[in-house]
Amino acid sequence: MSTVALVEESAAPAEVAAIYADIRATFGLPVVPAMFRAMAHHPAYLKASWERVKVVMGPGLIARKTKEMIAVAVSAANGCDYCVQAHTAALRSMGSQDAEIVELMAVVDLFSGFNKMLDGLQVAADIGTARHQ
Amino acid sequence: MSTVALVEESAAPAEVAAIYADIRATFGLPVVPAMFRAMAHHPAYLKASWERVKVVMGPGLIARKTKEMIAVAVSAANGCDYCVQAHTAALRSMGSQDAEIVELMAVVDLFSGFNKMLDGLQVAADIGTARHQ
Amino acid sequence: MSTVALVEESAAPAEVAAIYADIRATFGLPVVPAMFRAMAHHPAYLKASWERVKVVMGPGLIARKTKEMIAVAVSAANGCDYCVQAHTAALRSMGSQDAEIVELMAVVDLFSGFNKMLDGLQVAADIGTARHQ
Amino acid sequence: MSTVALVEESAAPAEVAAIYADIRATFGLPVVPAMFRAMAHHPAYLKASWERVKVVMGPGLIARKTKEMIAVAVSAANGCDYCVQAHTAALRSMGSQDAEIVELMAVVDLFSGFNKMLDGLQVAADIGTARHQ
Amino acid sequence: MSTVALVEESAAPAEVAAIYADIRATFGLPVVPAMFRAMAHHPAYLKASWERVKVVMGPGLIARKTKEMIAVAVSAANGCDYCVQAHTAALRSMGSQDAEIVELMAVVDLFSGFNKMLDGLQVAADIGTARHQ
Amino acid sequence: MSTVALVEESAAPAEVAAIYADIRATFGLPVVPAMFRAMAHHPAYLKASWERVKVVMGPGLIARKTKEMIAVAVSAANGCDYCVQAHTAALRSMGSQDAEIVELMAVVDLFSGFNKMLDGLQVAADIGTARHQ
Repeated sequence: MSTVALVEESAAPAEVAAIYADIRATFGLPVVPAMFRAMAHHPAYLKASWERVKVVMGPGLIARKTKEMIAVAVSAANGCDYCVQAHTAALRSMGSQDAEIVELMAVVDLFSGFNKMLDGLQVAADIGTARHQ
Repeated sequence: MSTVALVEESAAPAEVAAIYADIRATFGLPVVPAMFRAMAHHPAYLKASWERVKVVMGPGLIARKTKEMIAVAVSAANGCDYCVQAHTAALRSMGSQDAEIVELMAVVDLFSGFNKMLDGLQVAADIGTARHQ
Repeated sequence: MSTVALVEESAAPAEVAAIYADIRATFGLPVVPAMFRAMAHHPAYLKASWERVKVVMGPGLIARKTKEMIAVAVSAANGCDYCVQAHTAALRSMGSQDAEIVELMAVVDLFSGFNKMLDGLQVAADIGTARHQ
Repeated sequence: MSTVALVEESAAPAEVAAIYADIRATFGLPVVPAMFRAMAHHPAYLKASWERVKVVMGPGLIARKTKEMIAVAVSAANGCDYCVQAHTAALRSMGSQDAEIVELMAVVDLFSGFNKMLDGLQVAADIGTARHQ
Repeated sequence: MSTVALVEESAAPAEVAAIYADIRATFGLPVVPAMFRAMAHHPAYLKASWERVKVVMGPGLIARKTKEMIAVAVSAANGCDYCVQAHTAALRSMGSQDAEIVELMAVVDLFSGFNKMLDGLQVAADIGTARHQ
Repeated sequence: MSTVALVEESAAPAEVAAIYADIRATFGLPVVPAMFRAMAHHPAYLKASWERVKVVMGPGLIARKTKEMIAVAVSAANGCDYCVQAHTAALRSMGSQDAEIVELMAVVDLFSGFNKMLDGLQVAADIGTARHQ
């Protein structure tokens, strides 16, 4: 139940329908994820976002499965149920099973705890973790 | 270095000066904390916020020192350096030493980690943690 | 509905079953909370986490009830429904009633608001809130 | 001091230099903001992100100055110093003065406090705040 | 389903009933929003918070509709379902339709992404985004 | 500059000194990171946390370098400067260069934006992203 109606595929204007077709083809999905159908009320935003998804999740120095793990970890840290579920499903489609998902969350647990504790103690960075500029 | 100028005590209009005097008297401070001097650009907001501080931090069912611990814990979880430092100083003025501050942060660490891990695994609440309504 | 199956007590390997028994005994609970049954897919993580729970929530300079209040406050700040419900239930078992829980949340409200406002105004810490090192 | 070197304008490859020129021209700035010089290590990401900035911040149903206010408010809620400073400077260039900036932060304060308190009390949405789908 | 019982209008003590009446009259609502009925377990906190709502959301330099947009944006950044729904409903009552709500969220999306990326790259503020004090 | 003094190696009690030695040996570091020297005011917490670090970051189904990437991504999402710098340094020691670090942050950017936008539009999970239990 979103706060906006979803733009259904059957009712999408041509420019949106073309993006929908690309999304379905790229992911091999029978339907366009609800997220994109909500974004479609602003077609230029949908288009620019979808182009960026392809760039960011596309081939590069980091493996696709690692990117999906980062997607789940970041979505857990930010508390987004939709993204956690969508990208956990993506991980499963790449072979992840329960033990690997829990191992991933153990890392999220460890550092989320340390992150907040360190903010609370205001510990300054160690010498040797040098930064540029 | 704030993004707005601070309204100094010497330049404060009468209604702000009266609040400043109450803040200094209530906390026994020689100067008004910078936070309130920034808020003073919107006198009605400063006034309503200060009244609320007195109500929330004033006598009730929870001891003042416990409220200061919660202030530090919440500020650590939200990542606010100003509040962490101000309320850690308040805790120290009530007798807290390093070991107690680290024990407090251990609790923040433990639950911040579990919070994000549970968001990432989408574990539903246990039966028995009943809610009203 | 979690993204991983829960490791039920009847199906737990011996090392997990021993931890489950300790959890039930320590908390006086008839069943192991779902959180631990999800973590059990990574037994060494479950074990190390449970040992740490006992240390962090065990006797020290800060009273157990205060630690439970901090647990609820931090979980509210981080937005974790599971932990909010579990530790509000713990507070109730220690005698907290509605008025105390709302008084606790008033502190969370006050400082979460100030935290974000101060991040938005970039107000620097007051002189006198000295830090070590 | 960033964790990566910034790609300076004098050393930028052609595709990056073209984006840099467009950024400077669009914002009327003498130098490219550091953020984009950091992103330039991944030229396709820089390009897709810059295209999206133009779409999202460009003409639409919401006035540009309102969008800058939202940028500051969101950056305060997320705790990003860089963005708070950059977009407060943008607001000032559009005529905002201290009183308006503090009025904006009062709204951030009010709702950030209520947001966390409501997460902590698990209050369900009121009937009448209907959602689609 | 909140963790505390709501203080219903029929059972409210006089000081709470007076605030309830003011809330209903101010917003033109048939019932008091659940949030305030939860806060009513701490009447002084309810009263101080309601006074502050009127100050912060009342007339000033920023239009009421812009303040509602900021309320939705901040509540999205902080992840509060209750507030997102309540203030999206308020926006709709002021004429916002799906396209405007998605345009608003596009700004939240853009800056929330940049906020976290910049925290991750530790990019220092540009010279020229001067701050006071 | 932390809010607590750091427990220096020369002044550490025996049980802390033993952990310090293990930390230095495990990471091959000439000095114990400041984080652990702050935690040492609560030796049992330091010990339980260090045991857990070894379990979570130790061998398993996910490669160590991937875990370091997740550490940086989570720390960026949570806004912890100390952890961002420490684990970016760890990534560099494993061969990561600027382009890879920016590619990692592009993923953090993408999903942090979507996370908050989806919270703001309250889009429900797609059918097919099935969950257990």
